[in-house]
Amino acid sequence: MFKYLMPTKVICGENSVKENASELILGAKCMIVTGTTSGAKSGALGDVADVLKENNIEYLVYDKIGNNPTIEECAEGGKIAKDFGCDFLIGIGGGSPLDATKAIAVYAVNDIDPYDIFEGKFDNKPLPIAAIPTTAGTGSETTPYSILTLHKINNKQSFAHPDVFYRVAFLDGRYTVNLPLQIARNTAIDALSHLLEGFTDKKASPASDYIALEGLRIIGRYVDNLKNGNFNIDICTDLLWAASLGGVVISQTGTTIVHSMGYALTYYKDIPHGMANGLLLGEYLERTSRVLPDKVKVALDAFGMDLDEFKAFLKECLPCDIKFSEEELTKWSETAIKAKNVPVCPFEVTREDELDIYKKCLL
Amino acid sequence: MFKYLMPTKVICGENSVKENASELILGAKCMIVTGTTSGAKSGALGDVADVLKENNIEYLVYDKIGNNPTIEECAEGGKIAKDFGCDFLIGIGGGSPLDATKAIAVYAVNDIDPYDIFEGKFDNKPLPIAAIPTTAGTGSETTPYSILTLHKINNKQSFAHPDVFYRVAFLDGRYTVNLPLQIARNTAIDALSHLLEGFTDKKASPASDYIALEGLRIIGRYVDNLKNGNFNIDICTDLLWAASLGGVVISQTGTTIVHSMGYALTYYKDIPHGMANGLLLGEYLERTSRVLPDKVKVALDAFGMDLDEFKAFLKECLPCDIKFSEEELTKWSETAIKAKNVPVCPFEVTREDELDIYKKCLL
Repeated sequence: MFKYLMPTKVICGENSVKENASELILGAKCMIVTGTTSGAKSGALGDVADVLKENNIEYLVYDKIGNNPTIEECAEGGKIAKDFGCDFLIGIGGGSPLDATKAIAVYAVNDIDPYDIFEGKFDNKPLPIAAIPTTAGTGSETTPYSILTLHKINNKQSFAHPDVFYRVAFLDGRYTVNLPLQIARNTAIDALSHLLEGFTDKKASPASDYIALEGLRIIGRYVDNLKNGNFNIDICTDLLWAASLGGVVISQTGTTIVHSMGYALTYYKDIPHGMANGLLLGEYLERTSRVLPDKVKVALDAFGMDLDEFKAFLKECLPCDIKFSEEELTKWSETAIKAKNVPVCPFEVTREDELDIYKKCLL
Repeated sequence: MFKYLMPTKVICGENSVKENASELILGAKCMIVTGTTSGAKSGALGDVADVLKENNIEYLVYDKIGNNPTIEECAEGGKIAKDFGCDFLIGIGGGSPLDATKAIAVYAVNDIDPYDIFEGKFDNKPLPIAAIPTTAGTGSETTPYSILTLHKINNKQSFAHPDVFYRVAFLDGRYTVNLPLQIARNTAIDALSHLLEGFTDKKASPASDYIALEGLRIIGRYVDNLKNGNFNIDICTDLLWAASLGGVVISQTGTTIVHSMGYALTYYKDIPHGMANGLLLGEYLERTSRVLPDKVKVALDAFGMDLDEFKAFLKECLPCDIKFSEEELTKWSETAIKAKNVPVCPFEVTREDELDIYKKCLL
């Protein structure tokens, strides 16, 4: 038995925001949630503001979302949205603002202890939300997940709820074409990680596998661009679509240990999320290929590489000179092994195994 | 630019209804909409009744939906639902009950002239609906379309509205495994027609093409079964999933002239919908291959045949000894050329062309 759900409307193409105003405007008064710079720099904030002004929609810009948003920032955003009295939100940015928007949509209409969000303890339906990704990686625009940072537990924690799926997502390569190459790489590798973890973990199904392969085929076409740069708007729109497919996949399958082990790298070392995944992804696939050799081959064939080539590709795209100590890795493995997504890992994994993976990848 | 939307949750597998009661029960009081026999014979009605009884949900069975439901039957169903005071509907059956359920969901909460449904002239959100297909063909469970028969215009007419997507669909091969072989064939060929029309018409997009290919691959695995029978529950569940993928595809692309030309065969000659499509599908693909040779080849490769083999397969699966007159075909072509989906046909098509297609396929 398998289940499939991904209710977000996706509108993909150049100028999709400006040409689909009626689908962007989900209410009468709007709060835009974005990062400190990503919304403005990408051009997306300007396009959205134009559309809202042309349609006489009152709006407020909440641009306080930093990397790896904390639950406190989101609760604060919810309070501001409530005080402003808006009835819909537009999230603009990478995974951080897009995940934060989901939490803010909950807090704006539910007067709860912020931590209750993780148990889905809220009664009122979250505000409707629209997504405009400015990186091609997170897939947050097509998932019911929001990953928040909790200093209380020195880690990230996710919540999932079908009511926080975005109502609509606009994918436009104009917003990602000027990203620095390393950000384009990190985020594309985050998407790859979603596609590969989703394709191989124990929740993979006929409803997610063919979608994962399509995402892998698309990103595989742009390996040279990811190595060398030279993007254009069409390529960037394709990569946004592939990243959204990654979101569709993990909406069905979740992620597995690459993600849960990667969180510590981001929390303690400030390594960008996609890079953190990418540093662990080769070893994950290596171990997965021992239990699912055919499936790993099918995935890598779709991408257009064998396992060694794939590991070399990751290495080339993820230059990282950060030093790690065995003590750190030991501590992180103790936390990571408790993650909810460990049981869906395709191979047996203990704390010692996770430590071993950390060591192989990082020392 | 392309758009993608398919918000229905699909639950696919043996005993999916009984094992997912909380997802079937969308309210406090239910009307079940089904055909005169399909609901009971398939076993689906019994399963649904058991679940509703176990959960103390009051329900009424409206089993007056015949083949090719009329707008009058649906309006009547809406009145009964309203009088009964139900707050959700469960549609069980082939395309006829599943399409009718969508219209009834509108009429139950909107006191309108029944014909206004075609212009989307209704203010209140239709009742939430759950689908249980008992044939693997229509894909109605994953589309926003409802095709109704209008004696006023001697033809079928469809309406489309995002609010009539099913909330949830349950796919279980137990409900289709005992279908007569010819019905299994007709309905599978209806699904094939959705996949092939959607893959080749002018609204095809990167969001629909890879889904169409997956559906074609799945049905292609069961060519021998469609020729000779010998289905089992797993095969039937796979075919239901492929048919749902066909629905996902045409939700993005619509259908084209195979469908609009086929309606007359059903209306005037009582030829089952899938068979009507199938009689025209080979010639459609032949003509499409002249303008999109690569695309037709990719589609047929996914299915596992070349064009001649595909035409022979259709012929073998669709024995039809009904006689047609040139006069009839001329009249039908005059109606069919006015259909809304003619402009998306991949090749230029005039009334004379449609008459020529009818003649080649039917005389």
